[in-house]
Amino acid sequence: MEFETQEEAPLIREPLRRVGITNLRSVAKINWKGKVYTFLPLFEVTIDLPAEKKGIHMSRLVESITGAISEAVEEEVMEAHTSLEELGRCIIKRLEEKHPHRRAEVRIKTHLIIPRKTPASGRTSYEPYDVEVAIIKNEDGSFEKLLRVKVTGNTVCPHAMANNNGKTHIQRAIGELEVRAPFEVEIPLEEMVDVVEGSFSSPTYTLLKTPDENAVVRRMFENPKFVEDVAREIFSKAKERFKGKIHVRVVSQESIHKHDVIAETWS
Amino acid sequence: MEFETQEEAPLIREPLRRVGITNLRSVAKINWKGKVYTFLPLFEVTIDLPAEKKGIHMSRLVESITGAISEAVEEEVMEAHTSLEELGRCIIKRLEEKHPHRRAEVRIKTHLIIPRKTPASGRTSYEPYDVEVAIIKNEDGSFEKLLRVKVTGNTVCPHAMANNNGKTHIQRAIGELEVRAPFEVEIPLEEMVDVVEGSFSSPTYTLLKTPDENAVVRRMFENPKFVEDVAREIFSKAKERFKGKIHVRVVSQESIHKHDVIAETWS
Amino acid sequence: MEFETQEEAPLIREPLRRVGITNLRSVAKINWKGKVYTFLPLFEVTIDLPAEKKGIHMSRLVESITGAISEAVEEEVMEAHTSLEELGRCIIKRLEEKHPHRRAEVRIKTHLIIPRKTPASGRTSYEPYDVEVAIIKNEDGSFEKLLRVKVTGNTVCPHAMANNNGKTHIQRAIGELEVRAPFEVEIPLEEMVDVVEGSFSSPTYTLLKTPDENAVVRRMFENPKFVEDVAREIFSKAKERFKGKIHVRVVSQESIHKHDVIAETWS
Amino acid sequence: MEFETQEEAPLIREPLRRVGITNLRSVAKINWKGKVYTFLPLFEVTIDLPAEKKGIHMSRLVESITGAISEAVEEEVMEAHTSLEELGRCIIKRLEEKHPHRRAEVRIKTHLIIPRKTPASGRTSYEPYDVEVAIIKNEDGSFEKLLRVKVTGNTVCPHAMANNNGKTHIQRAIGELEVRAPFEVEIPLEEMVDVVEGSFSSPTYTLLKTPDENAVVRRMFENPKFVEDVAREIFSKAKERFKGKIHVRVVSQESIHKHDVIAETWS
Repeated sequence: MEFETQEEAPLIREPLRRVGITNLRSVAKINWKGKVYTFLPLFEVTIDLPAEKKGIHMSRLVESITGAISEAVEEEVMEAHTSLEELGRCIIKRLEEKHPHRRAEVRIKTHLIIPRKTPASGRTSYEPYDVEVAIIKNEDGSFEKLLRVKVTGNTVCPHAMANNNGKTHIQRAIGELEVRAPFEVEIPLEEMVDVVEGSFSSPTYTLLKTPDENAVVRRMFENPKFVEDVAREIFSKAKERFKGKIHVRVVSQESIHKHDVIAETWS
Repeated sequence: MEFETQEEAPLIREPLRRVGITNLRSVAKINWKGKVYTFLPLFEVTIDLPAEKKGIHMSRLVESITGAISEAVEEEVMEAHTSLEELGRCIIKRLEEKHPHRRAEVRIKTHLIIPRKTPASGRTSYEPYDVEVAIIKNEDGSFEKLLRVKVTGNTVCPHAMANNNGKTHIQRAIGELEVRAPFEVEIPLEEMVDVVEGSFSSPTYTLLKTPDENAVVRRMFENPKFVEDVAREIFSKAKERFKGKIHVRVVSQESIHKHDVIAETWS
Repeated sequence: MEFETQEEAPLIREPLRRVGITNLRSVAKINWKGKVYTFLPLFEVTIDLPAEKKGIHMSRLVESITGAISEAVEEEVMEAHTSLEELGRCIIKRLEEKHPHRRAEVRIKTHLIIPRKTPASGRTSYEPYDVEVAIIKNEDGSFEKLLRVKVTGNTVCPHAMANNNGKTHIQRAIGELEVRAPFEVEIPLEEMVDVVEGSFSSPTYTLLKTPDENAVVRRMFENPKFVEDVAREIFSKAKERFKGKIHVRVVSQESIHKHDVIAETWS
Repeated sequence: MEFETQEEAPLIREPLRRVGITNLRSVAKINWKGKVYTFLPLFEVTIDLPAEKKGIHMSRLVESITGAISEAVEEEVMEAHTSLEELGRCIIKRLEEKHPHRRAEVRIKTHLIIPRKTPASGRTSYEPYDVEVAIIKNEDGSFEKLLRVKVTGNTVCPHAMANNNGKTHIQRAIGELEVRAPFEVEIPLEEMVDVVEGSFSSPTYTLLKTPDENAVVRRMFENPKFVEDVAREIFSKAKERFKGKIHVRVVSQESIHKHDVIAETWS
């Protein structure tokens, strides 16, 4: 006989908003515009728990993930998903057959590699970005998505430049853009990356031959920007391009300080 | 002549909510109930930036921190603060004299070491906790605080115990409690730590002699708890004890899985 | 005209052992036993720098990586590598054509997902492992490899079990095994993973239905092990199976303490 | 009756080199040159385990730490240690009375805050550094120490500067210096910090008013350095000043790339 302790009444009758599994590393295959990409993302899947049940059945959440992605582990792709969002929604659909809930959330964190052309020599440079896609099923059955990208760029201090005849301090900066929108709204992660990457003093590149490096240096000096300027440009472009709630956070890893500076805003 | 680029008009006229310095490690001395404790916290200080100014004067934020804590670095304490909250508010007061703003926020992250008695031998064991104190000055001039504690405990699976004649799996779990309240409400961090620590299957101890270890093992087996049970108990006790907005998050680092399980809720 | 500052004589005439690029995220496709697997690893590539040269040409190291993997980014695999080791060696071969050096090293860090059968229900569970492969070209032209796996398992305290009539504390533990051997010696990463995973009180699984969970609990209680026991078993099996220099490190994330315990040894 | 499982014979007769506790956060008070400083370090204490014993008694290691530091938690310092090295040795001495061993090691990781004068305005700026002190008792009874400092500075690319009429890219860099020496050799951590900090294109400061910022910018442009130059200068100065085995590692967080560059060498 098997006890289902989860179905018992808990001592403390308090509903919980998010119960589930997190930091689960697995495989995902995405067929995006005709090409198949493989990822090894971190997954988080949570559902709400009503006041009268002691616990959720965690293994059913795992089964929803592995069901949705299992084809992807084998080389011959049976059923590649068309986007990380679609994979997230597919996990929730499988969850509906397995575990009752009113609210559900799937979060998928991975890296995206996008080929770019270097600014002078035109070589191909493969650029990595951190992305996170969350699919949220609300209590009314509506679906939302929360998309996040994290891009490495730079800031060039205009204040130091004004006070030092064009000399200044320069540093790596990290820009994060988050958009929350109804599931149906089309918001390509690549476009979000472009918005952030284009808002720094210059984009950064994995591969830079000397003429490329020179072009980046010139661009940086022509484009001095405070961390505030970068945040404003991302925010303003994102509001124009993407329908949804926008959150922007830029951290500049100052080369003259041991600490960082930050600019953050949201709609 | 010195240029104040920060005072210029920006290209993009967009107010920003949080601009400042982050990840700044410094010293703080707190005279709490007659004893002086020294910390090496991480500070974050941010203010809002109006649409018509290009940037903030970052160095004035640093001066507000170092002004407030400078006495603390020398051994002879001139003016120890009475709590981390009071230090946070003191930084904001100094900021008011240095930099115009409508909204300001100070975040202080540190470790707290609290002496405990071990459960059987009654020895003293020094227990470390992660704490974060944020002081927020709102646009209407009111002050709020956001207090966070992070406590290491454990969960003991009641489902496995029911199905295996008392045998089960046990693991480390991390409980986080956050309370947001008006500045004046008294909420000792130590009490928040107690609420979280007392909600696990058992508290954990740095020092455990064999009789203490036995007492902890017995307590764990008498107190099987899902991550859901721990979250509910923290949430229910916190709502009863602390006036404010409560957020609870518990992550159990499963010993039978490679991933974690999570329970989270908020008021 | 282009200056090659790297070729100048440095002020301080000191040879350097390892100069290069690190934390570079890119793509790798590996055709292992007839199936193609995609990874998004972190790369580090370093070479030595003689006393009389100011610097190395960093972009040539990047080109050696992107050259070796560039085919892999496109869906149609032109030339998948047969192992991470072979990819590492291939990067060094390209480096030989691009940049003079006497010593070179390529490090590739990624996750490996291996399908397993759960212990009772026989379901497929996809298990993630952290792996690192380093290929070292020595000054005499010989090639070595350094293989590392990191596996999540558990420990079950035999001391507490003896003192509490079979009750005890259990926790997640992390086992790391490193083998350094000549390049030619065949040491499959999967076999290294097996050695570590089989040395815990029980292996862990991503998916566990109730009968599987019961089997894991039973196995854990039949197999109480100190962190020392796990380290010894890994070390002893590794010495028997793998020809090379062995390093073992096991960290047990104690459920009764806030700190960890560790056992480490090497040949 | 209490079972001492640790004293039993293990199944696998293999001596282990390092067994103990790690990631234990506690308090330390150090009376250095007449002033008392408080730290909240992470401790690791390990001893060797002979082939014929199943385990070590972990709680005795904890007692050696808490014994050595317990006075330090109370405000009135009874017996502050004169340095982190002396505290480490004191922990080993207490360990000698508690647990037989042939080899022992204590590692203490903390932050150090050192007051500096800013380069133009002469204000006091409190600078944080990561330090680690390890005390090693060898099998022959001799004592060694391993000292590590980690300092945040910057690099200014001389190659880009030569090719862009003085314009270049600048970035934060992290320099690490490690010295291993007999216990008796006097090597102040502050001097190690100075060696690293003085080898960057410029030191960094927590507080910089505009004239200070200008001085740092000027200094950076007068001192262009590759990561290789920084590593060489640290290595060369360290060999001259400190008797012992030297290890240097510098990582430059490139502002034009998403990855880092590294230079490393050792004696």
